[in-house]
Amino acid sequence: MTPTASISVEPTFGEIRKAAERVRRVAVETPVLHSPELDQRVGGRILIKPESLQRTGSFKIRGAYNFIGQLDRRTLDAGIVAYSSGNHAQGVAAAARAVGASATIVMPTDAPEIKLANTHALGAEVVTYDRGTAVREEIAAEIAATRGATIVPPYDHPRTIEGQGTVGFEFERQVRDAGHALDALLVSCGGGGLAAGIALAFAGTSPDTRIYAVEPEDLDDTARSLAAGRRVSNRKNASSICDALRAPTPGKLTFAINRRLLSGGVAVSDDEVRHAMAYAFRVLKLVVEPGGAAALAAALSGGFDCRDKTVGIVISGGNVDRAAFADAVQPDAPHPG
Amino acid sequence: MTPTASISVEPTFGEIRKAAERVRRVAVETPVLHSPELDQRVGGRILIKPESLQRTGSFKIRGAYNFIGQLDRRTLDAGIVAYSSGNHAQGVAAAARAVGASATIVMPTDAPEIKLANTHALGAEVVTYDRGTAVREEIAAEIAATRGATIVPPYDHPRTIEGQGTVGFEFERQVRDAGHALDALLVSCGGGGLAAGIALAFAGTSPDTRIYAVEPEDLDDTARSLAAGRRVSNRKNASSICDALRAPTPGKLTFAINRRLLSGGVAVSDDEVRHAMAYAFRVLKLVVEPGGAAALAAALSGGFDCRDKTVGIVISGGNVDRAAFADAVQPDAPHPG
Repeated sequence: MTPTASISVEPTFGEIRKAAERVRRVAVETPVLHSPELDQRVGGRILIKPESLQRTGSFKIRGAYNFIGQLDRRTLDAGIVAYSSGNHAQGVAAAARAVGASATIVMPTDAPEIKLANTHALGAEVVTYDRGTAVREEIAAEIAATRGATIVPPYDHPRTIEGQGTVGFEFERQVRDAGHALDALLVSCGGGGLAAGIALAFAGTSPDTRIYAVEPEDLDDTARSLAAGRRVSNRKNASSICDALRAPTPGKLTFAINRRLLSGGVAVSDDEVRHAMAYAFRVLKLVVEPGGAAALAAALSGGFDCRDKTVGIVISGGNVDRAAFADAVQPDAPHPG
Repeated sequence: MTPTASISVEPTFGEIRKAAERVRRVAVETPVLHSPELDQRVGGRILIKPESLQRTGSFKIRGAYNFIGQLDRRTLDAGIVAYSSGNHAQGVAAAARAVGASATIVMPTDAPEIKLANTHALGAEVVTYDRGTAVREEIAAEIAATRGATIVPPYDHPRTIEGQGTVGFEFERQVRDAGHALDALLVSCGGGGLAAGIALAFAGTSPDTRIYAVEPEDLDDTARSLAAGRRVSNRKNASSICDALRAPTPGKLTFAINRRLLSGGVAVSDDEVRHAMAYAFRVLKLVVEPGGAAALAAALSGGFDCRDKTVGIVISGGNVDRAAFADAVQPDAPHPG
């Protein structure tokens, strides 16, 4: 279906390096942040890559543009389709607009309002569906077939994975330029595209860095799949406030990479995620969405022990509604720094 | 009173350069952020220096440490005193702790809770007073005299101004390294220490950059003083949600510099400030306090015309209570990016 799928079946480090050049046309280079207070809190040196500060508020524009930017004009003119709870939606909408293609995005009716509104504001046609009764992949496939449009896979495609891998490629270079090296890196994990891309990037530049996938405790399909040695799914109706991390099962491609390159998985509870969002508000002064706060939650909760290590944390997104944010950000409490 | 006051009466560019080395012992180098959406919104290229991401949540630790770090041991052992609505308080508390000195901070009872709590959590003794009936300078002077302690001036001292100037010194270098040059720079202004320090730094490195002080509309003492050619005060009881920018009059030292080096002043309303905080939440994904959002408000409101210019914006702080933040961040609306 996707015209580029035949170019390379496996994502590669070399392609991540090329993708890093490519995505700079639309994505910004997010900084690496350091908080002495956070270091003190967890007993290690923490370096944060805040992809919440990325254009569209998440890393997803990287994979979307790396995919879309390699399509030919004729393919682009037939249109772009995607399904997403909201961050991939905005990434695809922005990437499609950048190359002058029309985009149709299939989104759940209960997606955060900010994600629906931003996707629409980026010029995409938004088609909503009920998560309880409809299958988004089927809706998207039907739209794509009718129009001859191309579906941009949210995670399980070489070009998508390579695009997300540019987060790792940048992060490693920035950390090295600052005179450091990461002992470990924590990254949130839904379908596993970001984790797989980052793992590939570090395998090519800093192979001693151990990469861990962080998942909501009821959506720990990747951790359980790593343990089982094969892809297992989440319980149907498993829930979490992390709307961005609700993929039902690891991707085929992403799991093949993650199985080889990840050092393990860490689970976080919704309360730990809320606490991390509140910490980000009060101490780091960052707006972080639930799924974006998972890796930080793993460090703050002690689910991952940062003591005496240099640990990279990817904050993957910041698209959160005002009410959900206010709910997570508990009454102010002292936070020395 | 202050033992170092005799070293150099006038802040200098050379001392800012030295201060930049000095403050790195306690302060982080904040990044420069770029948002293509913000560029599109205002019609220019905007580069943001988010001192909200600084340790203690504002730039104030730079000036506080530059002052305190040059005191001798005996002076430090007699203790440190400061008065502040909260950001200087935290900066002084953190700087004093870094050199092993005890700090006593005089703060208004109605300071944001997060500022009171953080100052206390940083190990300082907090003495509160009623802004309506007491004069904070007198309370601080009495404490200092009784204990032989040293007052750290919030803005009107060469060492304080030089410390704040490191924001500008860093910013200019970061912008230059990225291949740009600022046509203009917008910076929030209370007593004028940050504006004066930044103006001095740019005078030494990028003299063609025009520097503008942004003030709340009822607290526009610096703009009116610039127009009058002499220091004029704000109306007694003038108010603003920008608690960090409530200095009653420009400082002697800061105004002498700002009169010479600033290109003008821009006033922003409380509503414009709230809108800027909401924009920072929804689009930039930054937690910004009212006073910290003033420069961004000037750009977004059109009070300063950014069209076809490269403009630097200093976000000076992010210490805001949850309730005040929720109040400012209006219901979600679409923001393309």
